[in-house]
Amino acid sequence: PETKLPKVGTTIFTVMSQLAADRNAVNLGQGFPDFDPPERLVEALARAMRDGRNQYAPMSGIPALREAIAEKTERCYGYRPDVDAEITVTSGGSEAILDAIHAVVRPGEEVIILDPCYDCYEPAIEMAGGIPVHVPLDPHTFAPDWDLIRAAVTPQTRMLMINSPHNPSGATLDADDIEQLTALLRDTDIYLLSDEVYEHIVFDGARHESVLRYRELRERAFVISSFGKTYHCTGWKVGYCVAPPALSAEFRKVHQYNTFCTFAPAQFAFAEMIRDEPEHYLELGAFYQPMRDRFREQLLTTRFKPLPVPGGYFQLVDYSAVSDLDDAEFCRWLAIDHGVAAIPLSPFYGTPPAGQRLVRLCFAKSEATRDAAIKRLEKL
Amino acid sequence: PETKLPKVGTTIFTVMSQLAADRNAVNLGQGFPDFDPPERLVEALARAMRDGRNQYAPMSGIPALREAIAEKTERCYGYRPDVDAEITVTSGGSEAILDAIHAVVRPGEEVIILDPCYDCYEPAIEMAGGIPVHVPLDPHTFAPDWDLIRAAVTPQTRMLMINSPHNPSGATLDADDIEQLTALLRDTDIYLLSDEVYEHIVFDGARHESVLRYRELRERAFVISSFGKTYHCTGWKVGYCVAPPALSAEFRKVHQYNTFCTFAPAQFAFAEMIRDEPEHYLELGAFYQPMRDRFREQLLTTRFKPLPVPGGYFQLVDYSAVSDLDDAEFCRWLAIDHGVAAIPLSPFYGTPPAGQRLVRLCFAKSEATRDAAIKRLEKL
Ligand SMILES: CSCCC(=O)C(=O)O
Ligand SMILES: CSCCC(=O)C(=O)O
Repeated sequence: PETKLPKVGTTIFTVMSQLAADRNAVNLGQGFPDFDPPERLVEALARAMRDGRNQYAPMSGIPALREAIAEKTERCYGYRPDVDAEITVTSGGSEAILDAIHAVVRPGEEVIILDPCYDCYEPAIEMAGGIPVHVPLDPHTFAPDWDLIRAAVTPQTRMLMINSPHNPSGATLDADDIEQLTALLRDTDIYLLSDEVYEHIVFDGARHESVLRYRELRERAFVISSFGKTYHCTGWKVGYCVAPPALSAEFRKVHQYNTFCTFAPAQFAFAEMIRDEPEHYLELGAFYQPMRDRFREQLLTTRFKPLPVPGGYFQLVDYSAVSDLDDAEFCRWLAIDHGVAAIPLSPFYGTPPAGQRLVRLCFAKSEATRDAAIKRLEKL
Repeated sequence: PETKLPKVGTTIFTVMSQLAADRNAVNLGQGFPDFDPPERLVEALARAMRDGRNQYAPMSGIPALREAIAEKTERCYGYRPDVDAEITVTSGGSEAILDAIHAVVRPGEEVIILDPCYDCYEPAIEMAGGIPVHVPLDPHTFAPDWDLIRAAVTPQTRMLMINSPHNPSGATLDADDIEQLTALLRDTDIYLLSDEVYEHIVFDGARHESVLRYRELRERAFVISSFGKTYHCTGWKVGYCVAPPALSAEFRKVHQYNTFCTFAPAQFAFAEMIRDEPEHYLELGAFYQPMRDRFREQLLTTRFKPLPVPGGYFQLVDYSAVSDLDDAEFCRWLAIDHGVAAIPLSPFYGTPPAGQRLVRLCFAKSEATRDAAIKRLEKL
């Protein structure tokens, strides 16, 4: 019998991590650090369990964590969200994305997404009965083309989704993008979903242009972040959404009937960590920058051409000097025959651009892992 | 502007826990134990973090946990689900319920739910665009009326949801119910969602009639359980779904774009606990039975009339000898004026039955908590 979600397959992250495990390949595919969260965070979580913090947390998150998020947001972006009405803790950034979409998108309404984009956007929209409208980013710089986006707006447009630092490219929005975005949304009632899960990983002294800095934008926005990315614990699945009170209220209607609340002991641990060690998130760009720089340097000894990486922990490389396979075939070949798992870009598109020869490598890895991968890539 | 989910309010569990905290009331409302998970489980979780189990778990759950669930299921119900194809670990039972509904229910299709039922069923159906069809359980025994259910089936019926042991009543399905259920579904293509999160809490030597015992039923069923209930850690939010391969495949399409995976260190801890200490789940009924018995005995010294409790950790009481308020007003009064938080039954119904004078008390509490509550109830 025909299924409800016939277009949905297994995510490329699962496929490539499985292949990496089967073939004992160096895994630069799925985006996760191969080093541990801070000792202090682990200790705080263990302590919370021993202190009996093992029953349901409040649906929107424990007050101490919402307080810490408010303080961090104010320090970083000059805006302090209301602790009670504007912050909701979720079981990872991806739950938050699904909740935000389900909170406002009705069957038949359109959501504009910018290709390439993270692979959960489209199915989350479709599960809510919405219609994803794909608009391409610039194929070289991965910057939004605001004229194209404006041309995609219709009376049915309910939401626009943006992502900076961008997965998979690492591109970041700048002040000019923010201006154009603001002008585009002004006088519409289009909601904005801003996926900022890599917010603290920006390089070369640039500042992260969070939507939360801008009143006109944040008043219509769901801004989503993830502690997994910030604290090297992608398997802990704790994220959050900041949105104005009316939107947070709608968001919580979904969240409360989805996961209801998030792993309680971790909430206590993050609250302590954010409050007592702000250096961690303030210095995360400085922590990753040497890894990025070294990895790019090493790539110059290979025939892979690295693209610029303003933010995030992914490096796009052009492999056209190495192979003429399409990106999915190339990634299979790279993992199976050469022992390096990467992520092809085509799953990030509604319709992948023909002839594109780019794959994504994650450099949030120990020196040993990066060196082992480079050694294998050098042979090509 | 009108919202997408206008009917959804704040869950009664949040409302009553908040009121209990504000008024310093003894909280027998929201269903959670006020004692801790086994020391060994806490230690195993802490160890998993220290062993570096902090990045994404596989989307369907770590193999060791799925293996342990298969073994537990076989031991309890004589059926061993396939580790790879039939078990998916989720961020709590409620995520699993939402995922199962979204996996198969299309806009306009009907889902039969039996009132009273857990308050997330209806909104989860509505978020998928489905139509909840409410059929009442017997108002005295809370047993399903199979004729009424049969009469509610239409060509649009996509799913039937059942729950045993039942929240809020504690009623359990028996072998005769299973026969009637099987006959009802035979020759239809209606899916079954069986919410069995209290599966290990059954009393008086009865056996839990899991749908997984019955081939004809399990072949069309999503069977959902929750470790929070079994291991006294409702705030950890780890549950799972057992379903045949084709249904699990659909289920995972939703799960992978919802939370993607569940808090990894806890998965290692539950795998160890289930494998090495089966006595815990095998003896959970025996663990709770003295609490139930003692609580019921104590209630006899009050004017509240306890209803039978075959399973789960909730006690329904008839308060008609105490007050003529409706259940919502009565619960507010009980919490504010008398310092005991309970849960009214009306939020568990599409249309609450007029004049019903029942509230739900959770007895999964330390002796001190139960005694304190009884002392206050005795004054009424
Ligand atoms: C949830 S698995 C994907 C992890 C990730 O963010 C990525 O690799 O892009
Ligand atoms: C998720 S809060 C509700 C907990 C519960 O299962 C209940 O009280 O019925």
